[in-house]
Amino acid sequence: MQITRHEPGKLFAGAVEANGFVFVAGQVADDLAQDIGGQTRQVLARIDALLAKAGSDKSRILWANVWVTDIRNREGMNAAWTAWVDPRNLPARATVEAKLADPRMLVEIACVAAK
Amino acid sequence: MQITRHEPGKLFAGAVEANGFVFVAGQVADDLAQDIGGQTRQVLARIDALLAKAGSDKSRILWANVWVTDIRNREGMNAAWTAWVDPRNLPARATVEAKLADPRMLVEIACVAAK
Amino acid sequence: MQITRHEPGKLFAGAVEANGFVFVAGQVADDLAQDIGGQTRQVLARIDALLAKAGSDKSRILWANVWVTDIRNREGMNAAWTAWVDPRNLPARATVEAKLADPRMLVEIACVAAK
Repeated sequence: MQITRHEPGKLFAGAVEANGFVFVAGQVADDLAQDIGGQTRQVLARIDALLAKAGSDKSRILWANVWVTDIRNREGMNAAWTAWVDPRNLPARATVEAKLADPRMLVEIACVAAK
Repeated sequence: MQITRHEPGKLFAGAVEANGFVFVAGQVADDLAQDIGGQTRQVLARIDALLAKAGSDKSRILWANVWVTDIRNREGMNAAWTAWVDPRNLPARATVEAKLADPRMLVEIACVAAK
Repeated sequence: MQITRHEPGKLFAGAVEANGFVFVAGQVADDLAQDIGGQTRQVLARIDALLAKAGSDKSRILWANVWVTDIRNREGMNAAWTAWVDPRNLPARATVEAKLADPRMLVEIACVAAK
C-alpha cells in the first residue's frame, strides 16, 4: 500500500493518503481571535485545502470528529458546518467537548475522506 | 470508490460505507432519562441497526471510540458493552471522558466496521 | 474482507487488521508512576509492539489520536513523540485533553496504520 503525506510539519502531517482514503489531521483556526463561527469557517477552509491536495473534496468525506472547547458552542459550530457541508453527501460525525492545545482555540476538526 | 450514506440527517449521516468499510457516527441514547447501563444498551442497539443497514454486524467492528461524560461511569458502560460485544471478535477501542451535546447524555459511541 | 485480531482482552483487542489497515486500540502506560515523558515512551513502545504483530511499523502510521489529561503536558508528550516518530513519515494527528480511565494515567494514544 503506497502512502502519500501532505504538508508534513514538525510533529505530524496535514493529511495522509493510503489505499484511496485520506486521513486529515485535526485542524484549528489560524486567527484565534475569531469567534466560534469564524474559527469553524477557517478550520473548514483548511480541510478543503488539504483534501484538494489529496485529490478529494468535502463531498467525499466519510467521517469527521469535531472537538469544541465548550459544548455550548456547538450551535455556532453547526451553523458554519451547515453552510459548508454538501447536504447530499453528509459524512458520519461525532462531536464532543475537549480542551485544545491553546486556550484561545474554540474548535478542532479531523476527518477521513475517500479520494 | 463508491460511497453509500445511511440515515442522512440535517448535520451528518448515521453511517457511511466506502470500500468495504462502514463509518458509524457517534450514537447517543434516545431516552436520556436512562442510567449509564440503559443509555449504553440504547447506543449499542442503534449501532446494531446502522451496521445492519450497511450489511455489517457487531462481529465485524474493527474500532470503537467511547466517550463517557464521567469516567467513573466506565464500569456501567463496560457491563453493557460486555453483554453485547462478540467475545470472539473484539474490536480495538479507546474510551475517554468528554462532555456531550446534552448534559443528560452519559455515553456516546462511534465505530468503524468491515462489511 | 478478512479480519485479524491481535491481543484480544476482556473488553477489546489491542489491534485489528482489515484490508491492509491496522487499527490500534488506545494505549496507556504500564507504569503509571512515570511522568508524561515516561508514560508517553511506554505508550509508544506498546504501539510498536502491536504494529509489529500486525506486520506494520511506525513508518506506516496514517493517523494518530492523542489524549492528554492535562493539555499543558502536551510539550512533554511531544518531546517523547518527536524522539520516536519517523520524521520522513509523519502521520496525521489530533491531540486533545480528556480524562482517562485511571487518574494516574497522563496520556493515551490510538492510531491507524497501513501494513
